Formats: sequence, C-alpha cells, structure tokens
Amino acid sequence: MTRERIYLFDTTLRDGQQTPGIDFSVDDKVAIAAMLDEFGLDYVEGGYPGANPTDTAFFEKKRTKKAGFVAFGMTRRPGVSASNDPGLASLIQSAGDALCLVAKSWDYHVKVALGTTLEENLAAISDSVAAILKSGKQAMIDCEHFFDGYKANPDYALACVKTAYEAGARWVVLCDTNGGSQPSEVERIVLEVIASGVPGTSLGIHAHNDTGQAVANSLAAIEAGARQIQGTLNGIGERCGNANLVTLIPTLALKEVYTSRFETGVTAEKLAGLTELSRAFDEILNRAPYHQSPYVGASAFATKAGIHASALMKDPRTYEHVTPESVGNFRNVMVSDQGGKSNFLNALKRRGIDVAKDDPRLDRLISTVKEREAEGYAYEGADASFELLARRTFSAIPDFFRVDGFRVMVERRFDALGQLKTVSEAVVKLEIEGKTILSVAEGDGPVNALDLALRKDFGCYQQDIADLELTDYKVRILNGGTGAVTRVLIESGDDDGRRWTTVGVSENIIDASFQALYDSILYKLMKNRGLAGPAE
Amino acid sequence: MTRERIYLFDTTLRDGQQTPGIDFSVDDKVAIAAMLDEFGLDYVEGGYPGANPTDTAFFEKKRTKKAGFVAFGMTRRPGVSASNDPGLASLIQSAGDALCLVAKSWDYHVKVALGTTLEENLAAISDSVAAILKSGKQAMIDCEHFFDGYKANPDYALACVKTAYEAGARWVVLCDTNGGSQPSEVERIVLEVIASGVPGTSLGIHAHNDTGQAVANSLAAIEAGARQIQGTLNGIGERCGNANLVTLIPTLALKEVYTSRFETGVTAEKLAGLTELSRAFDEILNRAPYHQSPYVGASAFATKAGIHASALMKDPRTYEHVTPESVGNFRNVMVSDQGGKSNFLNALKRRGIDVAKDDPRLDRLISTVKEREAEGYAYEGADASFELLARRTFSAIPDFFRVDGFRVMVERRFDALGQLKTVSEAVVKLEIEGKTILSVAEGDGPVNALDLALRKDFGCYQQDIADLELTDYKVRILNGGTGAVTRVLIESGDDDGRRWTTVGVSENIIDASFQALYDSILYKLMKNRGLAGPAE
Repeated sequence: MTRERIYLFDTTLRDGQQTPGIDFSVDDKVAIAAMLDEFGLDYVEGGYPGANPTDTAFFEKKRTKKAGFVAFGMTRRPGVSASNDPGLASLIQSAGDALCLVAKSWDYHVKVALGTTLEENLAAISDSVAAILKSGKQAMIDCEHFFDGYKANPDYALACVKTAYEAGARWVVLCDTNGGSQPSEVERIVLEVIASGVPGTSLGIHAHNDTGQAVANSLAAIEAGARQIQGTLNGIGERCGNANLVTLIPTLALKEVYTSRFETGVTAEKLAGLTELSRAFDEILNRAPYHQSPYVGASAFATKAGIHASALMKDPRTYEHVTPESVGNFRNVMVSDQGGKSNFLNALKRRGIDVAKDDPRLDRLISTVKEREAEGYAYEGADASFELLARRTFSAIPDFFRVDGFRVMVERRFDALGQLKTVSEAVVKLEIEGKTILSVAEGDGPVNALDLALRKDFGCYQQDIADLELTDYKVRILNGGTGAVTRVLIESGDDDGRRWTTVGVSENIIDASFQALYDSILYKLMKNRGLAGPAE
Repeated sequence: MTRERIYLFDTTLRDGQQTPGIDFSVDDKVAIAAMLDEFGLDYVEGGYPGANPTDTAFFEKKRTKKAGFVAFGMTRRPGVSASNDPGLASLIQSAGDALCLVAKSWDYHVKVALGTTLEENLAAISDSVAAILKSGKQAMIDCEHFFDGYKANPDYALACVKTAYEAGARWVVLCDTNGGSQPSEVERIVLEVIASGVPGTSLGIHAHNDTGQAVANSLAAIEAGARQIQGTLNGIGERCGNANLVTLIPTLALKEVYTSRFETGVTAEKLAGLTELSRAFDEILNRAPYHQSPYVGASAFATKAGIHASALMKDPRTYEHVTPESVGNFRNVMVSDQGGKSNFLNALKRRGIDVAKDDPRLDRLISTVKEREAEGYAYEGADASFELLARRTFSAIPDFFRVDGFRVMVERRFDALGQLKTVSEAVVKLEIEGKTILSVAEGDGPVNALDLALRKDFGCYQQDIADLELTDYKVRILNGGTGAVTRVLIESGDDDGRRWTTVGVSENIIDASFQALYDSILYKLMKNRGLAGPAE
C-alpha cells in the first residue's frame, strides 16, 4: 500500500516570532533551524530578510542541510514590476532555497488594506511567482485570510489560489489568518478548492489557534486533500499561537486513521526525540515547559487516580492512547514504579555508582528526588546537584567547607555627585579546616556580590577554585503570584573544558542562588579529587 | 427558526480534580460552584461523595441554585444488588439532584479491570439507573472508554449505551477516556450510535485533550447529534486536561456555523464575563493565567506586527475573529522595535494620545523605545511602562511621589534554635507631598520585602493603592554569563479587573524589580485619576 506524503513546514522562526514576548537573536535562529532540520522537517521558514537586521543576517547563509530553507516576504507592490521591487529583489538575493510570499485573497483586504484593484493583485501574484522561478528558487504563496475571503467572495479567493498555482507555485497555502474558522468549514472549503481544479498535492494549510482548534483545522484540511501543514514548535505564534507541530507530528505518525494513509519525513527514531526537542526549545525561550502539553508535557502520561494507576500498572494501554516511549516521554504513576527505578540505576551507573536494585538507599534517593522536585527542584537540568545528592545518599561527602552565614545588602542612594546609584555588597562567613574566614565584596548585583565574597578567600582551597567560572545563570519563577518560588540554575566550567549545572530553590532568590553556588563549588572540589564526574 | 439546545456540563470539581497539583478545599468548591451556577451552566458535577472527606462534606448541602447539582460515582458492584451497594446508597443520600455513574463499556475492561461478565456489567447499569430513578433523582451514565471500546467491540459498547438509555438515564455520555480519538472518528461513531436508535438528545460527549483536540472532538460530537458537552474551566483535568469550556462556550455562542443551529444557557451578557470567570478561577488555583488562551488570554487580541497593527486600526475585523468585548477581553496593540511609525501612532491613539505623524516628539519617543529595547527593555509586553514613557514624552506626569533611596538586606544566619534561616528586610525612603516617609518591612524574599516596604505607608495615596495587587512576576536573564542583565516584568491588577504590566532592566535584579514596582504604582495612581489607561 502506498501512503501519501504530508509535508511539514515550520514557521517558528517567522510567524512564531510574532508571539508577544518572543524575540530571537541570530544565534537562537541558527540553533533552532539546526534542531528542526535534524528532526526531519521538510521546510524551515527562517524569517523576512530585509525587514529587520536579525533576519537579514540570518539569511546571509543557508542554515539547513536537508530541509528547504525558506524566506518569507510579500508579493510585488501594486503598480511596480517584479524586477523593480526592491523588497522582492532582496528576497531573491537571500540564501533561501524557496520564497514564501504572502498574498491577499480576501477582496475586501485587497481594496481596503492594499488599496489596489482585484486584477492588479492577481497580476502581482503571477508576476512574483514568475520572478522567483526565474531565479531558480522554489515559489510558495501564502493566501492570507483565505477562509474568511472565501466566505465573503469565493470566486475571488479561488482566483488567487488558481493564479498562484498556474504561475507555477510549488505550494499554495490556505491561511486561516484570524484563526476563527471551524474544522467543518475548513474541510468543506478545501474540498471545494480541490474540486475547482487545484490538486491537493499543491495545497497547504496554515491554521491559528484562536478557537483552540489549529491542530484540528490542520487535520481537517489534510483529510480533505491538502498535503502541506504549516505550524510552529510548541504552538507559539501571534495571539493564541499557530498549529502546534509538536502535537501534529505524533498524531500523524501514531494514529491509525492517519498512518493508514499518510507518512511524513519524521522517522520513528526521530519521533522518540520529540519531548527533548520541545523542552530544548522552551529552554532557548527560558520558559517552563507546559505540563499539560499533549504528548510531551510532564503530565501527559501522569496518573494520579488510584484506580486508574493500578489499572495502568496491569496494562498501560488502559489509560494511555500511545506509549510514552514513542515520543520520548515518561510514564509517571504516583506510586513507586519500575520504569523510574531503572532510570535512576542508569543515571547512577553513568556516574560510576553501582547499586543493587533492592538497595534501600536507592528508594530513599528516589523519594528524596521526588519530594524535592515537588518543591520546585529540577534535577533533569542540574546534573551536578543530582550527583551530590546521590553521593550523599550512598557514601559521604568530605567536609571541605561550611558556610556559617551570609549577608547581602543592596542600597540605592544618592552618591557624592547627587546621582542615584545602586550598590550591592555581600559578607560571607566561612569555616575551612577549623579557621573562620570573613569576606566582603561588592558586585554588579546581589548574586554577583555573593559569588565574589564566597570565592574571595577560600583558605587552603583557594588554588582549587582558581579556574572555576560561572558560565550561565538562569532564574525561573515557578507558580507566579504571591506564593512564588524561585528556581535558580547555575552553569559552571573550568579549564578542563567540563561544564556542570547546579540548582537552588527558595522563596528567596538570593537563597536559591546561594544553594546553587554552594553546590557548584562543592562539586568542583570533588571533581578535582576524582570524587565526582562521569565514569569514563 | 428554532435552535436546538446544547447542555453544558461542568466537571471542573470532579474530573478537574485529577489534575496534577490541583486539590480543592470545600471552600474552593463552594466558590467555584457558585461561579459556574451564576454563569449559566446546566450541570455542575461536584465530586464523588463517599470517596473522600472533602467531597462528602461538599455534598451535605445543595450548592447550586439553577444548575443541576451532580454527584459522581460508580454503577453497583458486580454480584451485589443496587440496594445493597453501600457506595450507591451514600450517593443517593447525598444532596445531589442528579447522579452521574461511570460504567465500563469496553469489553476488555469489563473482563480484566472489573473482573466480571459482560452481562453482569449491563445488569449493573440498568439496576443502578433504576435505583437512582426510584430515589427521584436524575440519572446519567458516563460510558468510560466508549470510543476505544466501540473500535474493539461495537456491539457491546452500543449495548451499554442502549441499556442505560432504555433504563431511563436522562443522559448517556460517550467518554474518550484516553483522549486519543480523532474528530473524524468521533463524528462517525456518534452518527452510528444515533443510527442504532439512541436519540442525540440523550447523548453527551466527554473528551480529553491528549492530541490537543478535546474542543474539536466535542464539537464533532455535537455536529453528529449529541446534545450535552462535559468539560472544565480552563481545560484542567487529568494528563493533558479535559475539553475547555472557556473555549467551547464562546465558540458555540459566536460562530455562525453553530449559532445558526444551536443555543446554550449562557446569555450574551454572561458571556461578556467570560474573561473574568477564567481569571478568577486561575486566581483560586493561584496560578498565572495562560497568555495564549483562546478568547480570554492576555495575548488573544494582541498584535505585534507593524502591518497587521495598521490594518487592525482601520478595521478590527481584519485581524480579529470575534470582538474582544463579546468575551470581556481587551484589544492590545503592542509596540516593539520591529514596529514602524504607524504602530506607534496607533498605540498612542488607543491610549487617547493624539499626535501628528510629523510631531518631533514622536521621533523622540520612538528612538527612546529603540534605545531602551537595545538595553533589554521589552515594551511589547509592558503596556503600562510604555504608556508612562509616552505620557512623559508628550505631556507631564504629576509628581505624586519620589523614592529617595532604599536598602534591601538578605541575611542567612543561625536563629536562636540553631536553625539556618534566611531573613529579608527592606527600608524605603519616600517623599510624598513634602513629607519624608521611612518604612521598613520583612518579606519572603528581597523583592517581596521591597514591595511591602514601598506600599506600607504611601501617605495621602494609601487608599489609592489599597486594591493594587501584584499578580505575576517574571525574571529573565539576558545574555547569560558574567555581564548578565536582568529583565523583570511585573503584572499588576486591581478591583476593576484591569491588568497592566511594567518592566525594569538592570545588572541588579533588585534594581530592575524596583523599577517595575515603581512604574506599577505610578500607573495605578494615574489610572485612578483617569490619566492613564485605554481610551474608551
């Protein structure tokens, strides 16, 4: 049986950039494009070269190996020839393999927003496609407001699609720009477009989530015959977001109603990295992954109900619609479970800690980690803090140093010149080898001052920490509002080129930072003595 | 034209309670039930009396005025008569108007999980319905795993539905318990159930969001003929959640494809309180509202793109699928360094600041915003800080108060009992109406202490800021490493139901937080005097 190919078009770096609060740097874009390319997406739309310096710089080079590298722009302006349109010219000169141009397809918008005639808009579409093809690149047209336009004036909306298709566009994408269309409407209209003579193999769908149905609308278009889906990682995008590819990809790959007819470029092996992809992307955005995300959320395979949990242990299929392993996620049953235990055993083994499966200390470690994670600790991203916890459970950690207390002060006051100035100062009281050491330092902020004071005089271990460097510092506020808890992650490095991450959690950001700093120094001392670090 | 009635069944207090991290108290349940009742829902399912002390206490009294008050439970146990089943008896004695009993409808589960025969399970359904009707209460049956069961053994799944219907159940609810069914499957199967002789007016749908399609599945069932929808507020629920009623209700009420055929018990007037309902519920859960939620999210009607923003000002319909007012939300056109001049003009106009396009102050404002965004400020997410900057540029801001300085101290030390303890204290020096005010406060962390000290004594404006509340606090470290700059965003609210966001940026997190706190208070004072806020 031959299955039809569905093409996946990612617009995280273009439409996703419209998300309030999200602004990618060129480095972010390079990293994300590589992730998408590696995962098996067919097209990566990188932005709008010429519209802003970031996107222009990003399109100086090709950023994908396998995936089509797509630049976004607009059809030629009314009344100008394609070759005389500087916007279109700079798109053609970019490093994109393909250009995706937005074209109006709602007659009202052509007249009001664009201020031109319906005929001139059609001419702009065909001229622009011709200019792209002449340059040797692939051409795509995004029909903006297609579904609303079709409801208002079906003949004109169809004429836009046909003009693009007949001019040679590889894909004509039907956009639900305002996100208000319902699946039954999308299905009906896509069927009508195909009936009018444009083949489904040239049609794409671009859905927004304004009624919570971007995924369903995308699938409705596929069922009607469209063969390209545009969406974003974790469903970011303007307003309520775009269609979430992280939900769509496993649905197409695992649900019998689709697998019997379709296939995508994402292999089963890549699919098992889906959870990691989604979380790595959130990491770049510095935001907490959403627990209830389909497939990849921490709660997606979690069960709290007693009856459900015991049925789940008898046969996971009873309460799981797909296996967590298929998308690289984990089952989380709030009773002791074998999967969790073997995970821990592997993590310990990797650090050279060999433990028997029935060692009671193992249960103690697991329950400590679970308790602390419930408080907000995240050991998944804090390898060094996890290792310290484990070593403390299975053996002992030398008493290198003790921090008896600290005091951090931030003061905003007028200086001698009458200028407002903010000063941060920290005092730390350490005990090392029986000696009390009191240090004080000023820093750029309270955490920097605390770090400097801690490491200013480390007694007999001063030489040990000379090459210790803090390479990254991240703060996340868990459950906002009044009862907010702060999680701090600190990444450290040394001249070995090794990096390690430590975590601290507290209602108090200074306290959370202190915990992470403390673990980082302790880990460094252990590491220097061969008492910590991966088993080779 | 007569429109068919769709019945809305809320299970926030029952299935919603399965959400990891959510546990309602009796008081929470009382408050939420009153909100739901008031909003116009048809049924409020309150929990499982007899299963835990909270639910038992909650069902001692009737908690709704108009809505049906529903208790959840299970059909009688195999091999016991209905009158001898203590679980069923205690449900019947509860204050519920209606009982909704879960019954297995997947043959595999009947045999494996329940350990009984297929016939005995059918008898349990009909006996239990009969016992409920005898007590004078309304009977409903939730057919667990209905869609998976139907795929495995359609005859048996149908027999369960028919047995419940024929025994006199008012509603037989088809549950997609594992959440993996697709809309096309739901539609086909509901059509087949109706074709088998059970009328759609007796059928409900209970969908889960494991493929991000709980809303679409609910609507697919309605299109096929079912007439009751079960869902939760903000889509809470086990794993990826239940169908989100906050999305479904406006979709049914505002989308022509549904309004032409259906109606619900929620009036247009109540619908205008939807955003408030959703946020009040998050408030009870003590969590920040999700910005990208359909209809009610802070970003649901937000626009950042320059071209979109200018079209939006010409005619909001161009980028809005419904009006924000219809659901009690607000339009939000944001500014950012990507935005052009027209974006700024529109943003100002919306705040009642009318400026000519060639006003030199406009250029000054734009360059200030660009400069500050280069330093790390993000005005697109900080509407109130932007407005203060604009008002300062175009007119003047009254000299309500001045902060002459502050000092924040965090100390970790041993307390009298020898326990390590971290204390945060802040001292603030204010000048208000010529009077110097010195305040000191302790807090959960340094920022909390600073906030408390700032607002402890606000002189003649104390009353003004009495209802000011910080609803969210976010920290982002820009360009990690040693030269790190911290951006703080603070979301505030007051009794008006309005929310505003302010921003602060500094190398020093306390300083950045102070800037955002300062702007929030200043904005509140302006707002109270009609000097700030959207132009109506």
